[in-house]
Amino acid sequence: MFHKRVFLEEERKDMEINVASTSSVGRYALRDRIKNYVRTDLLRIEREIRSQIFGPVSMINEVSRYIVDSGGKRLRPLLTILCARLCGYQGTRDVPLAIAFEFLHAATLLHDDVIDHAEVRRNKPAANTLWGNQAVVLVGDYLYSKSLMLSLEYENLKIVEIITKAVNLMAEGEILQLMYLGNPDITEEEYLEIVRRKTAVLISSACQAGAILGGATAEQEELLHRYGYNLGVAFQLMDDVLDYTGTEEQLGKPVGKDLEENKATLPLIYALASADRMKQMEIRKAFLESSRDSNSLQVVKDFVCESGGVEYTTARAIEHARNAQKCLNIFPKSEVKDVLMDIAEYVIVRQD
Amino acid sequence: MFHKRVFLEEERKDMEINVASTSSVGRYALRDRIKNYVRTDLLRIEREIRSQIFGPVSMINEVSRYIVDSGGKRLRPLLTILCARLCGYQGTRDVPLAIAFEFLHAATLLHDDVIDHAEVRRNKPAANTLWGNQAVVLVGDYLYSKSLMLSLEYENLKIVEIITKAVNLMAEGEILQLMYLGNPDITEEEYLEIVRRKTAVLISSACQAGAILGGATAEQEELLHRYGYNLGVAFQLMDDVLDYTGTEEQLGKPVGKDLEENKATLPLIYALASADRMKQMEIRKAFLESSRDSNSLQVVKDFVCESGGVEYTTARAIEHARNAQKCLNIFPKSEVKDVLMDIAEYVIVRQD
Repeated sequence: MFHKRVFLEEERKDMEINVASTSSVGRYALRDRIKNYVRTDLLRIEREIRSQIFGPVSMINEVSRYIVDSGGKRLRPLLTILCARLCGYQGTRDVPLAIAFEFLHAATLLHDDVIDHAEVRRNKPAANTLWGNQAVVLVGDYLYSKSLMLSLEYENLKIVEIITKAVNLMAEGEILQLMYLGNPDITEEEYLEIVRRKTAVLISSACQAGAILGGATAEQEELLHRYGYNLGVAFQLMDDVLDYTGTEEQLGKPVGKDLEENKATLPLIYALASADRMKQMEIRKAFLESSRDSNSLQVVKDFVCESGGVEYTTARAIEHARNAQKCLNIFPKSEVKDVLMDIAEYVIVRQD
Repeated sequence: MFHKRVFLEEERKDMEINVASTSSVGRYALRDRIKNYVRTDLLRIEREIRSQIFGPVSMINEVSRYIVDSGGKRLRPLLTILCARLCGYQGTRDVPLAIAFEFLHAATLLHDDVIDHAEVRRNKPAANTLWGNQAVVLVGDYLYSKSLMLSLEYENLKIVEIITKAVNLMAEGEILQLMYLGNPDITEEEYLEIVRRKTAVLISSACQAGAILGGATAEQEELLHRYGYNLGVAFQLMDDVLDYTGTEEQLGKPVGKDLEENKATLPLIYALASADRMKQMEIRKAFLESSRDSNSLQVVKDFVCESGGVEYTTARAIEHARNAQKCLNIFPKSEVKDVLMDIAEYVIVRQD
């Protein structure tokens, strides 16, 4: 069963750093620094996406454009480009490989829309409400295959393998999540296993593929893989936190969505495991009702926020972000390294 | 618009051959000959499928087993094995590659179940009615990635490319079909384009991958690819015919399913294009109503059967089966060549 963790001194220190940088001035400065550096790369990514979504079948173009235009951060393709550059890559073939990861991400979003009966995604109606489940599943399949076809152009079995394994592990992660749906007694370790497969794998793959393109040594490749992996866990844990603490306006999607879908995430898992038996019973009942009863949802939300679930999850996210940053230690100082450090910092202070 | 084809003398001859071999004695003899030859290969396929569907996530195993146990013919993996053997392959690594194609096929069936809101598939309830759309989409994704992972073990980019392209073209084909749903005025050429992508591509890929494994020459590889392609078109066209002429007991799925789903297939497309304007208007109306009105469905069915739609489609199927057989001409006489000839024959006389 769940083993309650004791906060370590180092973690407390991390949390203080976090509190410092969450001041909105610090957050905006961080975001602007990243944005300024990646401006040109983002333009290259957008151009390549446009040129790749231009096939003979109009419905594929429509649905694909809709999903990739839904205001994503382009985190995954940016990481491929930045990691390649960190390893010395100076060519232009980084972009097609990068967008393979954006297409993979878009495919999972489309298949998630079927899965969640999602109605809003990033302030826009979910694709399945516009085109139906059928089109959404098939365009998802198309985007999966499209990203594999992009990766094949590098004639490097390892790159193809990374993407194939990512699809495999992501499907496993989503299925695990489905199996645990409605179960608030999932352990922290079980939950983290889902997060690793569902979110961290794709981000670490994006980094690793970039490293390979950049001609990384085996050690560099492994470290950038781990950078992405830790970044991915931090990213997902903060997503879980924001679903409790954010506003719909900030996030571009409804808050409390995880509870409405009967998904127990780390803030609740931690809070519930730390509560006494009576409280546990009360919260389990409210959790099960929270998908259709807004009062119960509020009960669970208040409980999680009052029981340290948000702080604990934030601390875990910070831990992973720091681990990500440590993976960059062996690389010499450079502008691109600074940006990768900043991204790991931004992930834990972001509010969108 | 649709250009009405004139039956050629050669096609008439083919149809007579067909009439001869559809005698149930001929059909059973053909089936038994194939069955006897592939008995051991089928056992090897079943064993490998069993050993591959044995992962840590129970829901993946359950849904995967359910779909691959749904009474399929194992046509695609058998073709991989037989084509490899025809090119001289004598090892045991044919089976994992072969079942990559069965997994691909199973993945498309699962995603089709979501797509069609299917309720019965091969005498069993469709997977989505048992596990829900969510699980079905995700296990489909898992099986896609699984088949790619199997193909990666051959460390041959061409094999990986064949499978990736197949997924890509199949998704395009299914989306095209979706776009034409409810449109009986699709041309024969447009319809055949869907058939090629939706069905023929996977079968030709299974054959081509077997050829590569068997160390085929470029010419042999191309001919086996074309064998599979023609076989696949013949197979799908006979499927379309059986949906008009078969019985639920024979097929293991409801007949008239295409009409119920508002899919115009070649028997209707041909019959409609050959009718006069008044009749066309009547049938278009009945076609649109046939998904919810059994009288209208019967009107369309009778019209198709009386207007030569079934005969025309059968003739086209025979033409493709003969083209498939011609592709085997350059291979010296052998038992495995005979079986591949028999399979192309059986596809057009089968009643299940």
